[in-house]
Amino acid sequence: MRIELVNTGTELVLGDTINTNAAWLGQRLAAFGVTVMRQTIVPDGIAVREAMEEAIKRSEVVLVTGGLGPTNDDLSRETAADLFALPMTQDDAITAHLTDFFEKRGKTMSIANLRQAQVPQGAEVLPNPFGTAPGLYFPAEIGAVMGFHCHVFLLPGPPRELKPMMENHVEPRLREWLSLGANWRMRYLKVTGVGESDIVDKVEKDLEAIDGLDLGYCIGKGDVDIRLSGIPEIVEKAGDLVRERLGEFIVSEDRRVIEEVIVAKLVELGQTVATAESCTGGLIANRITDVSGSSAAFGHGFVTYANEAKMAHLGVSEALLAEHGAVSEPVARAMVEGCLKVSGADHALAVTGIAGPTGGSEEKPVGTVFLALASKDAPTRVVKRFSPTTR
Amino acid sequence: MRIELVNTGTELVLGDTINTNAAWLGQRLAAFGVTVMRQTIVPDGIAVREAMEEAIKRSEVVLVTGGLGPTNDDLSRETAADLFALPMTQDDAITAHLTDFFEKRGKTMSIANLRQAQVPQGAEVLPNPFGTAPGLYFPAEIGAVMGFHCHVFLLPGPPRELKPMMENHVEPRLREWLSLGANWRMRYLKVTGVGESDIVDKVEKDLEAIDGLDLGYCIGKGDVDIRLSGIPEIVEKAGDLVRERLGEFIVSEDRRVIEEVIVAKLVELGQTVATAESCTGGLIANRITDVSGSSAAFGHGFVTYANEAKMAHLGVSEALLAEHGAVSEPVARAMVEGCLKVSGADHALAVTGIAGPTGGSEEKPVGTVFLALASKDAPTRVVKRFSPTTR
Repeated sequence: MRIELVNTGTELVLGDTINTNAAWLGQRLAAFGVTVMRQTIVPDGIAVREAMEEAIKRSEVVLVTGGLGPTNDDLSRETAADLFALPMTQDDAITAHLTDFFEKRGKTMSIANLRQAQVPQGAEVLPNPFGTAPGLYFPAEIGAVMGFHCHVFLLPGPPRELKPMMENHVEPRLREWLSLGANWRMRYLKVTGVGESDIVDKVEKDLEAIDGLDLGYCIGKGDVDIRLSGIPEIVEKAGDLVRERLGEFIVSEDRRVIEEVIVAKLVELGQTVATAESCTGGLIANRITDVSGSSAAFGHGFVTYANEAKMAHLGVSEALLAEHGAVSEPVARAMVEGCLKVSGADHALAVTGIAGPTGGSEEKPVGTVFLALASKDAPTRVVKRFSPTTR
Repeated sequence: MRIELVNTGTELVLGDTINTNAAWLGQRLAAFGVTVMRQTIVPDGIAVREAMEEAIKRSEVVLVTGGLGPTNDDLSRETAADLFALPMTQDDAITAHLTDFFEKRGKTMSIANLRQAQVPQGAEVLPNPFGTAPGLYFPAEIGAVMGFHCHVFLLPGPPRELKPMMENHVEPRLREWLSLGANWRMRYLKVTGVGESDIVDKVEKDLEAIDGLDLGYCIGKGDVDIRLSGIPEIVEKAGDLVRERLGEFIVSEDRRVIEEVIVAKLVELGQTVATAESCTGGLIANRITDVSGSSAAFGHGFVTYANEAKMAHLGVSEALLAEHGAVSEPVARAMVEGCLKVSGADHALAVTGIAGPTGGSEEKPVGTVFLALASKDAPTRVVKRFSPTTR
């Protein structure tokens, strides 16, 4: 199936907005085994028509984003109507939705907003519960008389409006056209603590040998989603293979990041964790506190960047620091046990390492990190890792 | 001047890589007063030819990124040679560069890499000190016999190779064609602590009235770069206007973010700052420690998310917390003064607020924040801010 994207918006060509919609749509489509054949990005205005017409002539499905707003340069709706030679009608349901939308927010609706209730005759309205701009779907039959053979979707530009519309109104149709039916699954196994090339080495060859499996990777911040899609038996088989080979590195199978999984587990157990960070400088505490509901699981964090801070707040001894250096197994152990004690938390996590760009030595090169975990009811563990980064 | 971008790469259409190159190039060109008329993104392979040919026919300048690598599906070089009907020649200087590049890294050069030393006859080589793929420039004269009137640049895909090549080899030519000459300036004034709509209200109308000024905005994390470009007198006049109206909010005029400016200032003064964070959960410490060289200016940070942490580590009294609540002027003051004392730093910064999504009240809605600054040699200051965010 030949699918193209047309993203409209002057902010995109000026570079004021990074085109994350194109990447997100590309990933959703790749999961169905479809590679986007072309993305065309044009500024708002008349350039939209040229881009839309070319795409419709070339492809079977065209997804257009943006240009559905209330301002003069939002022209996607009118352009599609013009291309398909369809008259506009005022849609009562949209008018009611718009009236309600503004009333609920205590705002008055402008005449310009009423343009958003105009629907080219024959197009189907795709509801937008998260904004004022409804989407529109032009079935391929509509353009057949003009020699087009293309399904066209007009979708809103803001990601929080676009994503649910894509998932709820575009994807069910695509699955039908691709004969994927209801019998199609998509699963993400999120792995962390293992590099992308190791993942490839461990599973890629065998996954690619599974007939009917669609495989993809999505790189996150410190993790990788392995995307498996196909019929349920195939996805299950592939999932088993990944679990067998990479089990210890799997964080979640529902795209939750590691801090979400940890906070949920702690809340479930009624326990807490505290942090003592040197080289990460507060990043771990920040990722934990960014999780909604984390205050039940996290209360205390220390950023002990200086040796004096490790001594003053965590009780690390000066002698230990002098003997082993701040980046060492004994200091990581002293930091985490001090953190457990002064915080009163059930668990403590400590990190000390050489972040670079300077400060490395032959014995402890930039990227050397000690991670420590202490718990009220378990022995302290310290592991050494090497994670050079390019900064 | 009609300029288009053609970005090639299967990773772009699959959404595995977000197209930040397009945004960056869009911003660079906007600074010259040029709006990219179209971006076309195609997967590696034969689709590149179609996209490149269409763009060349439509435009005066085409920037192609990607497809210069050593693998079979890197076809930009061959595609351009084919479109312009130019024979390929082996370039000795590039061959020497490649040999040297691999030797320095202790790697052996493959035959595939030698393809990167092939140059279509008549194209100019753009050196790439940061990678193996040189860029290529096809002057408009080359295609004139075939009816094209377009300058074509082939540029590498990796941003760290693309950016210097654009700045050093493409932009000087563009400035010449746009008659901007050496007499063209670009200045970024970074402002923070003021919303985008306030910036627009305070300066946009008067800036737009300055003849010959090119104005743009680039939204960062918690700041906005106001981009001014044009001839020096115009940029200076516009800069004076922004300084007059928004002076107190200007962080830097060289794109440095606030934490870089603060760390540099502290290092210059030989002073330090410590942090005590509640709602920001370590974000401030993390942004400070992300600045290279920050260890001279920052040693101690506290993430006192729980009231118990504010009491235990910063010495905030239980009575104060009970009387005023954790999000209050007196508690912010007690946090910052406690932080100054226990850290021994020259300055301390404290934040307490209601981050949401829950926890707000009528008196203190979600977004209420108290910021406090204490110094060894100055009275403590506490300010209240309201920063609702959508999370």
